[in-house]
Amino acid sequence: MTPSQLAPITLPAIQQPVRTELDGVFDELGRIVRSDFPLIADVNMHLLRIKGKLFRPTLLLLAARAAERLAPTKITLAATVELIHLATLVHDDSVDHSVLRRGQPTINALFSHQTAVIMGDYLYSRAIIELVNLADLEPLRVMARVTNEMTVGEMRELEAYDALDYSEDAYAALISAKTASLMSGACEVGAVDADPGCREALRRYGHLLGMAFQITDDVLDYTETERTTGKPSGLDLREHKITLPLIAGLPQMTAAERGSVQALMTDPEPGDDAIADVIAAVQARGGVQRARARAAEYAERAVEELGALPPGRARDALEDCLTYAVERRS
Amino acid sequence: MTPSQLAPITLPAIQQPVRTELDGVFDELGRIVRSDFPLIADVNMHLLRIKGKLFRPTLLLLAARAAERLAPTKITLAATVELIHLATLVHDDSVDHSVLRRGQPTINALFSHQTAVIMGDYLYSRAIIELVNLADLEPLRVMARVTNEMTVGEMRELEAYDALDYSEDAYAALISAKTASLMSGACEVGAVDADPGCREALRRYGHLLGMAFQITDDVLDYTETERTTGKPSGLDLREHKITLPLIAGLPQMTAAERGSVQALMTDPEPGDDAIADVIAAVQARGGVQRARARAAEYAERAVEELGALPPGRARDALEDCLTYAVERRS
Repeated sequence: MTPSQLAPITLPAIQQPVRTELDGVFDELGRIVRSDFPLIADVNMHLLRIKGKLFRPTLLLLAARAAERLAPTKITLAATVELIHLATLVHDDSVDHSVLRRGQPTINALFSHQTAVIMGDYLYSRAIIELVNLADLEPLRVMARVTNEMTVGEMRELEAYDALDYSEDAYAALISAKTASLMSGACEVGAVDADPGCREALRRYGHLLGMAFQITDDVLDYTETERTTGKPSGLDLREHKITLPLIAGLPQMTAAERGSVQALMTDPEPGDDAIADVIAAVQARGGVQRARARAAEYAERAVEELGALPPGRARDALEDCLTYAVERRS
Repeated sequence: MTPSQLAPITLPAIQQPVRTELDGVFDELGRIVRSDFPLIADVNMHLLRIKGKLFRPTLLLLAARAAERLAPTKITLAATVELIHLATLVHDDSVDHSVLRRGQPTINALFSHQTAVIMGDYLYSRAIIELVNLADLEPLRVMARVTNEMTVGEMRELEAYDALDYSEDAYAALISAKTASLMSGACEVGAVDADPGCREALRRYGHLLGMAFQITDDVLDYTETERTTGKPSGLDLREHKITLPLIAGLPQMTAAERGSVQALMTDPEPGDDAIADVIAAVQARGGVQRARARAAEYAERAVEELGALPPGRARDALEDCLTYAVERRS
């Protein structure tokens, strides 16, 4: 994988080999969640209007095409993966009391916290119904395991921890469960009926991609300036979330800098200046750089896994997914 | 079904034909939810210590025995049904901000609201994993459908409605989705491998039992005096929940009584006297009596369904479940 020298790789370009199927995924989503009950129909309309990037369905469909197993049922499987992702987001936002997601109000903000909890359960159970209707236990097995892993990831995120003593191993376990598990599951389900070597390679590829994806997400919190403030948002720090840039920067920090990290983490509502100071220290002590390097390492290992697949447009697109994952700005 | 003239029918007596299997259910529950993650292990310990009445596993095992299909896998199925019930309770308590359940602190009260949301997801996804491991799509199909129905029931409960204009049909749709669906599913799953006539009869029996069970639950809120106050708790009224005793009492109420109902429902925190007044009106206007009669009707119809099963101890116990459902005091 070489960094793109000219224009950055865009998601629509990556999605080109499965564009038709992705349009089908959106229709399937609408069909699966449909309800006559007014409140549920309202929430559905809101969720479908937001229409995410469909990154996980893209992975599933590209994996299926790369494994030469793209069939109509894969469109339904891709929709259930997005649905499970959506259910998780709805519950996550509720747990985190988030008010915005993809620039739109969250379900807990727009409706209520109660509606969000019930709606997450509604979406997830609909996804299971749909998987059962496909009458194949294997995708169900993968998706059930992955969903359970995600709940453990959420628990890890919830646990109180000591900022100055949080290890990269603990962080890796957290993002593996929270993010990499579903991307890995999406890739595996795409190739669930391929030969075991191919299925396994895609499962591992999805895991490594997910790790690179989440680390990059966490780096963006330290680097991307907000349009309004011209400064990095530092949202994770504000919420006392300890991510790789901080973990990787801490060992090089001065005692004073470490003290300011500690102070921020014990302040229930840290101020903008305190956050800006810690971001500056993380940047100055190489935390961002080291985190980016770690994301690149995961991406390199993921490329190697793709060697198990037959060459072609879909395999190339999966390689581009890695570039997208580590180079994206949002 | 004749009301028991002497001692009331107890749940332990009903459970006698499947006592050994029920002990197995408790062990299975512990095995299925086990986690190395400390916070999850803590919540599990709390949930298992509470140890409910295992009424739904009892139904499943009695249905299996009555249909002559009791096998070791039914113990695991019974554990997953209880697990799905537990997951629902954990989310319900969180949605309702309840602090006590079965006399013990709820997960949201003892740990946190966040932990409750995630833990419900954890328990439910564990149940699905276990169902997948049994490698039979039919119980999964029933349980996925039932879980989805329960979320719709929760939504119905959440919806604002006009106390003076809430129909018995709307109430029946609510309790069918919220309560009867899982009891019906438990009975159906118990006989999932029996002949279709038997499976269907048990599915319908479970539904009718669930309706009678929930109506009785709602009646108890109007009749059972609390040890501390010596008065009915009126908890549903306090939470503005409209149940059958009120619906059935309203048409006979005076204009003044209807006014006091309306006033209570629009008061965010109704006082004890306002609640006591409405309870007295519901009792005086025959609401409790009519609700009890409706529960008995459902139970009678449920008895008829049992005619499709071979006679024996398990079938008798299922009949006793109906007596228990409508005569219990808690």
